[in-house]
Amino acid sequence: MTLPSKVRLVEVGPRDGLQNEKQVISTEIKVELIHRLASAGLRTIEATAFVSPKWVPQMADAAAVFSAIQPLPTVTYPVLTPNRQGFDAAMAAGAKEVSVFSAASETFSRKNTHCSMSESLERCRSVAEAAKAEHIKVRGYVSCVLGCPYEGEITPLAVAEVARALFDMGCYEVSLGDTIGTGTPEKTKAMLEAVARWVPLKKLAGHFHDTWGMAIANVYASLQTGVSVFDSSVAGLGGCPYAPGALGNVATEDVVWLLQGCGIECDVSLEALVNTAEWISRELGREPSSRVTRALRARRNVA
Amino acid sequence: MTLPSKVRLVEVGPRDGLQNEKQVISTEIKVELIHRLASAGLRTIEATAFVSPKWVPQMADAAAVFSAIQPLPTVTYPVLTPNRQGFDAAMAAGAKEVSVFSAASETFSRKNTHCSMSESLERCRSVAEAAKAEHIKVRGYVSCVLGCPYEGEITPLAVAEVARALFDMGCYEVSLGDTIGTGTPEKTKAMLEAVARWVPLKKLAGHFHDTWGMAIANVYASLQTGVSVFDSSVAGLGGCPYAPGALGNVATEDVVWLLQGCGIECDVSLEALVNTAEWISRELGREPSSRVTRALRARRNVA
Repeated sequence: MTLPSKVRLVEVGPRDGLQNEKQVISTEIKVELIHRLASAGLRTIEATAFVSPKWVPQMADAAAVFSAIQPLPTVTYPVLTPNRQGFDAAMAAGAKEVSVFSAASETFSRKNTHCSMSESLERCRSVAEAAKAEHIKVRGYVSCVLGCPYEGEITPLAVAEVARALFDMGCYEVSLGDTIGTGTPEKTKAMLEAVARWVPLKKLAGHFHDTWGMAIANVYASLQTGVSVFDSSVAGLGGCPYAPGALGNVATEDVVWLLQGCGIECDVSLEALVNTAEWISRELGREPSSRVTRALRARRNVA
Repeated sequence: MTLPSKVRLVEVGPRDGLQNEKQVISTEIKVELIHRLASAGLRTIEATAFVSPKWVPQMADAAAVFSAIQPLPTVTYPVLTPNRQGFDAAMAAGAKEVSVFSAASETFSRKNTHCSMSESLERCRSVAEAAKAEHIKVRGYVSCVLGCPYEGEITPLAVAEVARALFDMGCYEVSLGDTIGTGTPEKTKAMLEAVARWVPLKKLAGHFHDTWGMAIANVYASLQTGVSVFDSSVAGLGGCPYAPGALGNVATEDVVWLLQGCGIECDVSLEALVNTAEWISRELGREPSSRVTRALRARRNVA
């Protein structure tokens, strides 16, 4: 059981992290967050979402955010485009990579995206086909891979079927999301092994929420299974309004601490990242949920 | 790599958790906490510490606490006795099991216990010999097993030497403490493997702090190594005044969630435990640091 020597982090703070903030966040702050994350070494930064402002008002300035980014040549800035309308808007804004999402739970799909699982996959396919025509890369998300707020347990097979559908329609990577954070390491492994029967491990990413304190252990279990891509959110920003109590993407700082402690490269400067976490938390008027950021602050205050 | 089918939890909240509280906690509250923990299913509850009130004023009522406990026949109530004076006081109060502690760091030992590592082990030996004469079981703690706030990295060999000394002097179990919580899973495994060359794995316990968010992952790594006893603290109470920033024993609730999710028995009622965590947190006027307790509260508030 050799762990990967290198991990790629997909920073989702500017999109998944900010999307449910009730307070209006200025376009300038969003863009500065993206720039600071790039400076800290993140090489994939999900920048925004081209979605209906009716459903996600925080992302109404998606085009303005995207066009204000001063891109680094080494960094990819994917944007979430849940349907053709979003995809077309993303193309108009100049996006080079997009993401689509589906869920492994029928009820969650209906509550979150107002359509069935199969309709959701059809929307994804429509985007994926348009993207293929434009030579645009597509990344897929699956929600509720380790539990659903409405249905409870989700079978690994249900996850594998959705992941396979996304992979087969052309997603270069499928991110498996424990949306409500109830997953534990052994269940994580069983789920990943089921998915890996149909989608190569190298094409899978782990996306964990720390709502129940299990995210870092689940990342570790995923590393043991051979997964080497993880989504995370600076300062632990984010959650999901349709998943009760589901606050808290795993904090990027905490994942970096884990990886560095395990001798795994991720090319991120922990110091720059923690400074970014402190900065965005001040801007939002809240405490970072990252324990690493809080521990480093305590250490600095003592020193 | 089969995980243990059963784990024994050593609840350290009433001692390690409360000892550094600045506010005076009444004897009644301490005793009620112990009773509630026993009702929740904890079978080993470190009840108090017989130490100098000059150093640990919160434990000045140790004899009163211990004598007010209405013991359950299935529960053990060890008490911390760092020296002969403490041991004699514990015996006078009727204690049936005691704990001693040492550290794997010379500087930490001097700052925390005002003596060298070897002097610290001599103090432990003095207690262990007196205990043997009285047919009293002794448990040993080693601090700083994955890092020291003063010296930084601690070698697995240094930990192994202290653990072996405690085991050889008669400790039936040696608890290995990541006092500052900087440890990560691969380092946890390397440390455990070094110690296990001299002390049988079945005689080792893991004691993790969640200061850097790694505790649950470290428990999982320890389970993979074969450790089946873990110290934890209800609501995540506790820390160490001599270890800057080292707030937060791993919360018992979070360990129970991990274990239950992995199909490992621990005989604890999560619901009763979470109610106890909520109760003691209200009494102390603080938020529980346990994510499981906070997530369950959020779920209840939504339901």
